[in-house]
Amino acid sequence: MEGYTMRSVVFDGRLHLADGPIPTPNSDEALIRLRVAGICQTDLELLDGYKNFSGTLGHEFVGDVVEGPSEWVGCRVVGDINIGCGGCDMCARGIPSQCRNRHVLGIQTYYGAFADYFCLPVRNLHRIPDTISDEVAVFTEPLAAACQVPELASIVPTDRVILLGAGRLGMLVAQVVRLTGADLTVITRRERQETLLDQWKIPHARRESVPDGMADVVIDCTGTAAGFDDALTLVRPRGTIILKSTYAGTPQADLTRIVVHEIRIVGSRCGPFEPALRLLAQGLVDPLLLIDAEFALDDTPQALERASKPGVFKILLRP
Amino acid sequence: MEGYTMRSVVFDGRLHLADGPIPTPNSDEALIRLRVAGICQTDLELLDGYKNFSGTLGHEFVGDVVEGPSEWVGCRVVGDINIGCGGCDMCARGIPSQCRNRHVLGIQTYYGAFADYFCLPVRNLHRIPDTISDEVAVFTEPLAAACQVPELASIVPTDRVILLGAGRLGMLVAQVVRLTGADLTVITRRERQETLLDQWKIPHARRESVPDGMADVVIDCTGTAAGFDDALTLVRPRGTIILKSTYAGTPQADLTRIVVHEIRIVGSRCGPFEPALRLLAQGLVDPLLLIDAEFALDDTPQALERASKPGVFKILLRP
Repeated sequence: MEGYTMRSVVFDGRLHLADGPIPTPNSDEALIRLRVAGICQTDLELLDGYKNFSGTLGHEFVGDVVEGPSEWVGCRVVGDINIGCGGCDMCARGIPSQCRNRHVLGIQTYYGAFADYFCLPVRNLHRIPDTISDEVAVFTEPLAAACQVPELASIVPTDRVILLGAGRLGMLVAQVVRLTGADLTVITRRERQETLLDQWKIPHARRESVPDGMADVVIDCTGTAAGFDDALTLVRPRGTIILKSTYAGTPQADLTRIVVHEIRIVGSRCGPFEPALRLLAQGLVDPLLLIDAEFALDDTPQALERASKPGVFKILLRP
Repeated sequence: MEGYTMRSVVFDGRLHLADGPIPTPNSDEALIRLRVAGICQTDLELLDGYKNFSGTLGHEFVGDVVEGPSEWVGCRVVGDINIGCGGCDMCARGIPSQCRNRHVLGIQTYYGAFADYFCLPVRNLHRIPDTISDEVAVFTEPLAAACQVPELASIVPTDRVILLGAGRLGMLVAQVVRLTGADLTVITRRERQETLLDQWKIPHARRESVPDGMADVVIDCTGTAAGFDDALTLVRPRGTIILKSTYAGTPQADLTRIVVHEIRIVGSRCGPFEPALRLLAQGLVDPLLLIDAEFALDDTPQALERASKPGVFKILLRP
């Protein structure tokens, strides 16, 4: 594709659309043409200075392979966003998402997917079954992150589970956790959250009606110090708190309570794509209700502005 | 024993020895005559205002049953310090140490063991094998707390384990953890710690010679915000941090690091007595080197003063 130019959404202290050459994939990469992309909380945090990011944004995508190994060209794909070095101890453990030298698509030292074209290692790609539409498939990456909750922490059918922070990621976590059969309650603050949860028949409650100290598992998707503190209040002795969002700054935390109540805390980040694709293909998770609006790639600044409003769920971008 | 009086070490804002009647055990309790008691970090914290404690101090003890069920009278015993209500959900789970309404010997709404005589429910008692001396048996309670580390968190033989906070409890934790065969390193700050660890052949190092981010398991016995922060620096991605001490105040904690590195935190408190007695009986843990001094019960204020000095390990009390 040499000689052709394309658009990409660049943040370098300032957010703007840039025109530039279509990238040339390395020998282990595929060139992907964007079909649809999603805006994530992390994108908004990068604009706020997280990781001192500079480059092309975007890591939730559906695209078509246009260059690369012949068995991949023409395939509709999603892609794991962590690019491991293959040589460190964490890669040797089979955990490239925790690679010591990792690049992360659109987040850390790797050009992102808010662009007409972008590259990703072929080993990161996953074919999308024909039965899954683009609008559903674009949720594969955040749904994989939701699947990382039961991947890292046991949730059993008799558990009483409380989820804090029913935002764009929290809503996917709720849909994954209810599949365990556990007694899940999502804490809500807005009617819109309740309307969505009602459509999935997921129980919800306002905080004041939920008893303290009784939950076997609390999942904190708030990313706030107050949320973590509330998780400590809600969990029972010997219970588990799963952290699903990064926190602003270095919050105060009641570590003594963790010791005295023998609580278990499990951090959780990116997750496995294949289980996410299975759940989408089987219709066990329904993300479509989470889509609030679609914008053209040219209008990404407005799309990001919209995504940053309280109570807004998923915003999609189309090339 | 009605009509007789005894001494007890009372803290009611002020530390003093009190004379009073020998207590009369309830129907489920035994009356115990003290043989030897140990001073723990928690005793010192109670004097500093922890839990707004008021009453008779002391929870590490060896004693003889002098009143109670006939099969117990004359037995030399140690005793579990948590007195569960038997009716709450945590007692129903078989975890009286996490009882919602618990009393704790010498710590929470229960007269302690720094006294000539004291009571404890018979169900809390454990007979001491004849092969274990009083001076060794008095370590059963803190050694049980050390056993709670492998009870709540998996430590496998190939794990690289780092222990922070080589104090009176940390030294027992180190002796328990080395039995797993794991690659244990204890971080030291004083020569005295190193001399002790050398006698048990437990590897140690100063902090500056230990690499960051490589430990599978970090055990934080420091009870300080700086210790917890260092544990987060030492643990590898997907590693485990075990918290073994309560923390002063509400320290700042880098929760984002827990999420991004997918770290597991496990709080741990009191532990099981029978494994502790087995380890002592089999000579697999050697606590005698930890004894720094013995005081008479009448000199408990001086004993507590001595125990509060940096680098002092175990101080014993004799009636």
